[in-house]
Amino acid sequence: MTTETVTESTGLDTIAELAAQLRVDSIRSSTSAGSGHPTSSMSAADLIAVLAARHLRYDWDDPHAAANDHLVFSKGHASPLLYSLFKAAGVVSDEELMTGYRRFGQRLEGHPTPVLPWVDVATGSLGQGLPDGVGIALSGRYLEHLPFRVWVLCGDSELAEGSIWEAIDKASYYRLSNLVVMADINRLGQRGPTDLGWDVDDYQGRFEAFGARTLVIDGHDLAAIDGACAEAEKTDGDRPTVIVAKTIKGRGFSEVENKEGWHGKPLPPDMAARAIKELGGERHLVVRGPLPEKVLDGPESSATTTATLELPRYDVGDPVATRKAYGDALVALGAADPRIVVLDAEVSNSTFADEFKDRFPDRYFEMFISEQQLVAAATGLNVRGYTTFASTFAAFFTRAFDFVRMGAISGVGLRLSGSHCGVEIGADGPSQMGLEDLAMMRSVHGSSVLYPSDATSTAALVAAMARTPGISYIRTTRGAYPGLYEARETFAIGGSKVLRSTEQDDVTLVGAGVTLHECVKAAELLAAEGIQARVVDCYSVKPIDAATLSHAAAVTTGRIVVAEDHHPEGGLGSAVTECLLAQGRTSLHIAHLAVRGMPGSGTGAELIAWAGIDADHIAAAARGLVRA
Amino acid sequence: MTTETVTESTGLDTIAELAAQLRVDSIRSSTSAGSGHPTSSMSAADLIAVLAARHLRYDWDDPHAAANDHLVFSKGHASPLLYSLFKAAGVVSDEELMTGYRRFGQRLEGHPTPVLPWVDVATGSLGQGLPDGVGIALSGRYLEHLPFRVWVLCGDSELAEGSIWEAIDKASYYRLSNLVVMADINRLGQRGPTDLGWDVDDYQGRFEAFGARTLVIDGHDLAAIDGACAEAEKTDGDRPTVIVAKTIKGRGFSEVENKEGWHGKPLPPDMAARAIKELGGERHLVVRGPLPEKVLDGPESSATTTATLELPRYDVGDPVATRKAYGDALVALGAADPRIVVLDAEVSNSTFADEFKDRFPDRYFEMFISEQQLVAAATGLNVRGYTTFASTFAAFFTRAFDFVRMGAISGVGLRLSGSHCGVEIGADGPSQMGLEDLAMMRSVHGSSVLYPSDATSTAALVAAMARTPGISYIRTTRGAYPGLYEARETFAIGGSKVLRSTEQDDVTLVGAGVTLHECVKAAELLAAEGIQARVVDCYSVKPIDAATLSHAAAVTTGRIVVAEDHHPEGGLGSAVTECLLAQGRTSLHIAHLAVRGMPGSGTGAELIAWAGIDADHIAAAARGLVRA
Repeated sequence: MTTETVTESTGLDTIAELAAQLRVDSIRSSTSAGSGHPTSSMSAADLIAVLAARHLRYDWDDPHAAANDHLVFSKGHASPLLYSLFKAAGVVSDEELMTGYRRFGQRLEGHPTPVLPWVDVATGSLGQGLPDGVGIALSGRYLEHLPFRVWVLCGDSELAEGSIWEAIDKASYYRLSNLVVMADINRLGQRGPTDLGWDVDDYQGRFEAFGARTLVIDGHDLAAIDGACAEAEKTDGDRPTVIVAKTIKGRGFSEVENKEGWHGKPLPPDMAARAIKELGGERHLVVRGPLPEKVLDGPESSATTTATLELPRYDVGDPVATRKAYGDALVALGAADPRIVVLDAEVSNSTFADEFKDRFPDRYFEMFISEQQLVAAATGLNVRGYTTFASTFAAFFTRAFDFVRMGAISGVGLRLSGSHCGVEIGADGPSQMGLEDLAMMRSVHGSSVLYPSDATSTAALVAAMARTPGISYIRTTRGAYPGLYEARETFAIGGSKVLRSTEQDDVTLVGAGVTLHECVKAAELLAAEGIQARVVDCYSVKPIDAATLSHAAAVTTGRIVVAEDHHPEGGLGSAVTECLLAQGRTSLHIAHLAVRGMPGSGTGAELIAWAGIDADHIAAAARGLVRA
Repeated sequence: MTTETVTESTGLDTIAELAAQLRVDSIRSSTSAGSGHPTSSMSAADLIAVLAARHLRYDWDDPHAAANDHLVFSKGHASPLLYSLFKAAGVVSDEELMTGYRRFGQRLEGHPTPVLPWVDVATGSLGQGLPDGVGIALSGRYLEHLPFRVWVLCGDSELAEGSIWEAIDKASYYRLSNLVVMADINRLGQRGPTDLGWDVDDYQGRFEAFGARTLVIDGHDLAAIDGACAEAEKTDGDRPTVIVAKTIKGRGFSEVENKEGWHGKPLPPDMAARAIKELGGERHLVVRGPLPEKVLDGPESSATTTATLELPRYDVGDPVATRKAYGDALVALGAADPRIVVLDAEVSNSTFADEFKDRFPDRYFEMFISEQQLVAAATGLNVRGYTTFASTFAAFFTRAFDFVRMGAISGVGLRLSGSHCGVEIGADGPSQMGLEDLAMMRSVHGSSVLYPSDATSTAALVAAMARTPGISYIRTTRGAYPGLYEARETFAIGGSKVLRSTEQDDVTLVGAGVTLHECVKAAELLAAEGIQARVVDCYSVKPIDAATLSHAAAVTTGRIVVAEDHHPEGGLGSAVTECLLAQGRTSLHIAHLAVRGMPGSGTGAELIAWAGIDADHIAAAARGLVRA
């Protein structure tokens, strides 16, 4: 049994042994687990062996070293290969590999997640690791000025995802010569051949056309891999590099090589035994490639320059759009904290992210109209320790839902701002109206969902988002509505505000955003008729303020009107009712006003009335409850 | 005032007048509305004038003629141009253009929708019209064998969307020579220059690399446009054609031509007056270009060959995965109805769509791993009258949420099947687990959301989907669970089944999919303790069976346990509680069991127990309610 340590200076013949070990371990681990993707691991084993031995500058004993290279398995299903590399690097034991892979309660999950300290982002939803890598590379090149490289292993099937091309486009636009893609062109997808098969020229043409430098190689020729990696390490015209590697799925075991029907299937034990024999048996080589440069500063340490935050101030009664307050708050945050980074998808003059861009152009990245890349870049920047805010229209975050979902699995901090929510936007029509965004964002694990009604609360909540881990989302409104709160007011995520109340209230009106203003008007209409309405600003849709809602429900004997500029499913109404039922409140009379039809164009006021979420409809619903 | 009719044989000098008219009317309509995008219309006016006069084979008096060409404005914000064309074609009056555009209750919405009979699909979320057009072109080439062409006007900003490249990739893979893209390269996006600016060579390189034939022209040279359209009409190597047209935003009015700051802004009245003067004043030319061939059959009439539907039969107690029943049902539907068409995104051997592919290969389209294009192609095929089913993992429909949302605005029938839902899938881990899909699909306007528990109900519901307009979604499970229903049982969308009940039930257990089987087991555990549990199969999550749930709540004095393999927000629990509250049921004691943590790998059974949605947890929750 070979126990040699493979280093930068080890010969290719020994690196070939390492590659065989990675294949053997990929087979052993997946066969032991009874599931996994050995053949997809075997096609890329030579690429990873050469990379790990000679090119990946990584301190395995310090995965958080600031100048470590990053290795992203965009083809996350090749987790057996990744975990076999971790074993070879000595950070995962052979025992863990053989007993932990894909088992309950273990960290070697079916697809990699940052539960493992050597993994930056969760992958497994294809076409995401590369876009995330673009974010990491942006940080190295523009913010930290550190010499690390981002190496991304892509499968060929995932090159059909549009997000890959959004990523290459941005990588070339931003001249990310620190990004190297290894494209494992093994010809076979899950259910058969990929659309381009082994046509490496076609792939080369596409990557070149999108602005990347390409190197086409035989992905099983170790010298060619070594040469391509070395070439990739030389910057060339500031382009990202794509190593287009023609490979064979299942490479190394003749019974499955280049055969259909072996995707995502572990080898049965008898076949595994034959495969291991054909591959020359088990090995326990250790790989320790080149170390990164020692550097002092990562973005974490630069936080020492943080200044006192001075949020913008607005006067009560002054009409200011919450989207404008979002932009104002970003500028304030940016002045106080150099780790604040802002991105937008070509609508920064609508979301008001442009205020930050104008003030801190070095910490602003334009993602053009590519919302998937917008969220992925924010993810990658967060991996490097930056507090990233990303904005577009609320409606268009639906484009990036899978990236938000995966962000939650990655455990990154994503701070998202969706403007132009609801029918309130008016003339542009339904394609531009966010009417599903609250449902979408609430369904994300561990998310915070905010929907403030005035500029003061918006600015405070944007500041709170900067301090909040996980996925947070703020929904902003197009139009300008009067300020409701004094500057001294505080707003916590999970809180709410009672705008109007007595101990004899007859009914509670719950609103957020534009409907809160309608609730206030409705309460005035009702007061004129002798009906006392409590008004709750439910600006934190998730987590929601159970205590305040529960108390309001108690005072008003369960009579509650909830009004929201959103479809009826999954939004504010759901949040309020689920919260009250979970509190054990058993006598509820809830009127839920929401956008139930398909809107067209019109003025905001016309559409809010049409949807039945204006003051008149809220007052009518309240009357109905009180008089029932 | 010119009142000439522009036809195929009209000279380019008169077509130039038509182009000027389109510009003038784009300005007039948007200025009158006080909003809209005149400058984005003006850049493309020459392209559209030449197309409409000489190349678009379209019977304006019969928008449903089977062989009509299709014109899709992927840059939907250029609606003033489209509506000005409709005026020139005589199907919209000048009065409607001037008083209806972007007004409440009117059909000339801010972005085009099929409320207008000459519009196939709603656009306005950029990067969707072209993918939809691919679906329309697939129909013409492979299903109807009709000679129509699909002309798609794209903006340059939207070429940054990955979905555009998914579309071109599929257009070239499927050799869609009947698809012609007119790319309006006007250099300026919403907030400034696009990433490639006027670099038409770069665009050309990208389109060519993705397999399209390209023709680069000056988009204001009418002869060049005419030549390019004529060239596009000649098939060449079965490639789609992209006319890369270098244009000037705001072309025709010197005060705004090629200037930043004029995106999405109507001209103020004084500027509009100067612009109209510079453009030579108002005109009222009529355009009537070439007519389509007369053909007899569209897909609607081919429905006469529909045979009797014979759904697959399963035995009670036999374990069959619902995803398998989905595939079986597709085959049955396909045999009965030639309009059934199926698509999948490279996982047909997991979703079981491959059963249909094997049986009816001519009516199956592989979309590879591009979920946005998957839904868009289904949309386009539905425009041509086909009943399309599209499948992928439930988790990966999050990738296409914006396309589903826009499908609802288009009013098309999208029938979607998401497999591998929930933690039940086990070893693959959270990236592959659909845990947000019910919330997502419920939030879509007018959607139907189904989540059956056995093969018999699945097959029946797939058949029901084929008859149901709008967006319908069926969630299928990976594992095989015992059949619950006899073949004679009927299942309506909006229905439910009571599996177990007495008039003395103490508690109601509501489940769907895998949790229904756990509810059945829990009821047996509880019965052994003397607690009678009613079990409801809530297979129709939206619309939900209010009557059955309300009756169950009445019998069990409001005590209900809801268990779902989904995050707690927006899914089955939300649907049940919102329904009961909307019914005016005021005394509810609901225990809601859902997936509240971040899952890892494990077996399905381990993870269902971990999540607290197995029989033991359901029984415990029921005990808690009964003993409270």
